[in-house]
Amino acid sequence: MDLENLVERLLKGEPRALARALTLVENRSPEARELLSRVFADRKDALIVGLTGPSGVGKSTLTDALAKLARERDRRVAVLAIDPTSPFTGGALLGDRARMDSAARDPDVFVRSMATRGHVGGLSGAAFEALVLLEVAGKDFILLETVGAGQDEVEVAAAADVTVVVLAPGLGDQLQASKAGIMEIASLVVVNKADRDGADVLAEQVHAHTDGKPVFKTNALKGDGLEPLFDAILGARGERRLMEAWLSSVLQQIVRERISPSAWEDALQRLKERSVTPYDAADALLKELK
Amino acid sequence: MDLENLVERLLKGEPRALARALTLVENRSPEARELLSRVFADRKDALIVGLTGPSGVGKSTLTDALAKLARERDRRVAVLAIDPTSPFTGGALLGDRARMDSAARDPDVFVRSMATRGHVGGLSGAAFEALVLLEVAGKDFILLETVGAGQDEVEVAAAADVTVVVLAPGLGDQLQASKAGIMEIASLVVVNKADRDGADVLAEQVHAHTDGKPVFKTNALKGDGLEPLFDAILGARGERRLMEAWLSSVLQQIVRERISPSAWEDALQRLKERSVTPYDAADALLKELK
Repeated sequence: MDLENLVERLLKGEPRALARALTLVENRSPEARELLSRVFADRKDALIVGLTGPSGVGKSTLTDALAKLARERDRRVAVLAIDPTSPFTGGALLGDRARMDSAARDPDVFVRSMATRGHVGGLSGAAFEALVLLEVAGKDFILLETVGAGQDEVEVAAAADVTVVVLAPGLGDQLQASKAGIMEIASLVVVNKADRDGADVLAEQVHAHTDGKPVFKTNALKGDGLEPLFDAILGARGERRLMEAWLSSVLQQIVRERISPSAWEDALQRLKERSVTPYDAADALLKELK
Repeated sequence: MDLENLVERLLKGEPRALARALTLVENRSPEARELLSRVFADRKDALIVGLTGPSGVGKSTLTDALAKLARERDRRVAVLAIDPTSPFTGGALLGDRARMDSAARDPDVFVRSMATRGHVGGLSGAAFEALVLLEVAGKDFILLETVGAGQDEVEVAAAADVTVVVLAPGLGDQLQASKAGIMEIASLVVVNKADRDGADVLAEQVHAHTDGKPVFKTNALKGDGLEPLFDAILGARGERRLMEAWLSSVLQQIVRERISPSAWEDALQRLKERSVTPYDAADALLKELK
């Protein structure tokens, strides 16, 4: 598929073209940049809903249920699941499991998972560009599922318009969450598996520890509590943060590309000889940028 | 403690001064940069040994055991445990647990854990600077423990001189590891809890799947297999990567500091209006750098 053809089919929202474009972005291919330059203006802002939380809370089931609800309300839906680098667990699990059962069988829901493959700085940049591509392909309701185990996932979750933190009873002290950055970026909190013991206590604790952040109780498997959550998500849309996150990530990439290998080696050598501080070395590199 | 005093005491290796300096770095305090500029040249390269792997493999016990061995061989030892952002689990666990029992009771082993606190890009930068400070304080054997759950942790692990990936039998398919970046940066692999069923099979699988990477079997709790591992670590020292990682992180910080808020807002506004691509917007920002 040549670029011209890819652009044309992507703008029509063809799933195969979208899948191909996402692969270019995921692999940090040089063509991805050309593609994005061509199409980035041809899109409308989707509602990007980030879902994050620990393993075992039923995040994928909830994502699936919300995708179905959005379809019933005639939204053009995409699910982007961001796989933690997960050198040890999770990676293939996400790919292998029979996930997103009902949503995946609906041809009008586009489902994709992206891995990071250990590229330094690669996850968030690729995720931001994938979101832009989904908008270019006409999706207007995007569920962005991340596992909140690393900083990158927090960064990705922070680029959503609405960020939903999903918890469940019986998984240990989840209020640790409030100590880290993720609760601060949460628009609302869900206690899933709400039929289980401890759900009410957990919901009250979260509410108390977050100065009254909205808490919704759901049972995604049975379909309980989903409509109020969905309506709250639609109502919670905050300031759009995707473009700022993307610009920041592109800036970092470009700086590194503009530094010649020999200038980099020189700076590194001087740093190793202790003849220059890293701050002065970085300064000098920036002065030489073309 | 004023800066002059802190510098003086840090160079003498006083634990309280080191703890204070590490806090400045962890909080990304402006004083940290001045401190580092003053002291960064006054150090010798330590051997930095990264230990990474999934939860439950006995990483902390192994770290503890290696710290003891290094002490017995008269090394000046530090343990730096990098806490994943861990919005949900792990954070306080690491702080609260009675970890590093024997090592922590040894006044000659300096133990510190660092959290990321959701600072974007903060973890790796802070970790690199913490390593430099430990060297300034005279440590010559540094155990850097990370949980390999996110990209940042992979980045930190990659800055070690020797990277040890720790696995254990009975935790599911750990060879997923070989699909991600972490196995590529491993200098050697440890199968801990080697008295358990499946240890031999796991060791053989790792060996086969990594094109013959060295695999060591240990039982850190009982002290089995530690000496050969320790000697292999001493022998595995590769090219030093810390300075390059640090320079790269400082460069990113400085770029963002040099862009005026108004230039950033202008670029973002044009991007939101779709009148410029993010690549051109980033270009323009770099041209305006002082």
